[in-house]
Amino acid sequence: MKFLRYGEPGREKPGLIDSKGVLRDLSGHVTDLAGDALDPERLTKLGGLDVETLPVVDGNPRLGPCVAGTGKFICIGLNYSDHAAETGATVPPEPIIFMKATSAITGPNDDLVLPRGSQKTDWEVELGVVIGRTAKYVSEAEALDYVAGYCTIHDVSERAFQIERHGQWTKGKSCDTFGPTGPWLVTKDEVADPHNLAMWLKVNGETMQDGSTRTMVYGVAYLVSYLSQFMSLRPGDIISTGTPPGVGMGMKPPRYLKAGDVVELGIEGLGNQKQRVRADA
Amino acid sequence: MKFLRYGEPGREKPGLIDSKGVLRDLSGHVTDLAGDALDPERLTKLGGLDVETLPVVDGNPRLGPCVAGTGKFICIGLNYSDHAAETGATVPPEPIIFMKATSAITGPNDDLVLPRGSQKTDWEVELGVVIGRTAKYVSEAEALDYVAGYCTIHDVSERAFQIERHGQWTKGKSCDTFGPTGPWLVTKDEVADPHNLAMWLKVNGETMQDGSTRTMVYGVAYLVSYLSQFMSLRPGDIISTGTPPGVGMGMKPPRYLKAGDVVELGIEGLGNQKQRVRADA
Repeated sequence: MKFLRYGEPGREKPGLIDSKGVLRDLSGHVTDLAGDALDPERLTKLGGLDVETLPVVDGNPRLGPCVAGTGKFICIGLNYSDHAAETGATVPPEPIIFMKATSAITGPNDDLVLPRGSQKTDWEVELGVVIGRTAKYVSEAEALDYVAGYCTIHDVSERAFQIERHGQWTKGKSCDTFGPTGPWLVTKDEVADPHNLAMWLKVNGETMQDGSTRTMVYGVAYLVSYLSQFMSLRPGDIISTGTPPGVGMGMKPPRYLKAGDVVELGIEGLGNQKQRVRADA
Repeated sequence: MKFLRYGEPGREKPGLIDSKGVLRDLSGHVTDLAGDALDPERLTKLGGLDVETLPVVDGNPRLGPCVAGTGKFICIGLNYSDHAAETGATVPPEPIIFMKATSAITGPNDDLVLPRGSQKTDWEVELGVVIGRTAKYVSEAEALDYVAGYCTIHDVSERAFQIERHGQWTKGKSCDTFGPTGPWLVTKDEVADPHNLAMWLKVNGETMQDGSTRTMVYGVAYLVSYLSQFMSLRPGDIISTGTPPGVGMGMKPPRYLKAGDVVELGIEGLGNQKQRVRADA
């Protein structure tokens, strides 16, 4: 199933997209796509509903982030060998992890706001993994049992804040609107192989990233297991698994987003995002 | 006022400590110490209650973290000149920030659990600043208007995970139980000068840290203003402002926590913590 959340920021309702692409309301069956509702068994039951009985949502409402109650937004750095090469880094011997602030999370088509003073805001299309059940010290073999599903993530990054402003990467990864999430939370049964999905990103119609999750170094099950050795993963936590080549920082000369740009991105089967870039007020 | 939360994990109720040190229940007046309830004006109103009318809480209940609904647990690295020196680092030209997972937050006297494989779990007493009102692009002059109050924080750190396991510090800062918070959220009116508070930490009765917030490099108002340039700070967010000298990593030879140790720590006027160290199951 393709679950989503629609409505005004902070007041989203749960919904799903039926096989004909029609948006239907799920709020009669679940309060929100958060916490216990994300348990894979619970999602399977929701998927078993007769979708024809669910109310059709009229119009074209705003989409919110496809999951709520996210306590951790964990990112994996340099997890595509070809992206590591373009940034001049080598693939690390174990995953590099960093955090984005959860306050960075926005809907997939909300404006991307350049923070004041930003000169180097960059793009990164990433496969997101949504945790569905608390995971601690889980093995790689059982790791996917703890996953609710997958989504498209835009891991927006201010490179000067990230790299030139001293210390840890968080500073350049956590600005408001730097984490568009969705449109859909796609359950595992619809994703035959999360390591064989085309992914792309365009700026003003020009293709910048054209990759595949095939070139990920550390795969989904490994990452869930690995992270769960350090901290418990909880329902609604998101793991953003790294980006393929084609970021602005890697270009010669480097290229960054400016007000008025339009960014479109997507992952095969997980849906597309479209953001208008604007300067902060 | 000294606000707190008491009861079993996940089911804490709000309370306060009256001038005689008696724990009283606040749940008739506020649902939890989270979100809008942390607005400084709201806290001032709560402080104006006739405390004699509040029910006394019998017994000696567990204390939870003194604030709920924490979306971000932001830490400042190397923010005491003497601590920077002991770790062999220099004071950075602007604040170093990193994130602890909010899932690391525990009550002030809960067990401190060594994660599996830990050899280098270290202590750090820190002044915590609790945000009370959404802050974005605020000036240093107005920054304290957005602060609900202060608390004692134990920024527990696994040095091998933090430094030797590749990449960002988050990995060694985010383990479950690595963020004891409380006992109290102390409102600003009770803290004459947050930059002149004695702070200390003992392991098995032996003093390890004996410092003062006087030697902080970047002060509270500066940090709130600085962080708010990068991301919006929201009610319940915690800023942990760095630690004075005396961490285990800086000793010759280094010294780390082991199962059975008892850690006690506190900050002048903000209350004390006591944790028993145990290995994870």
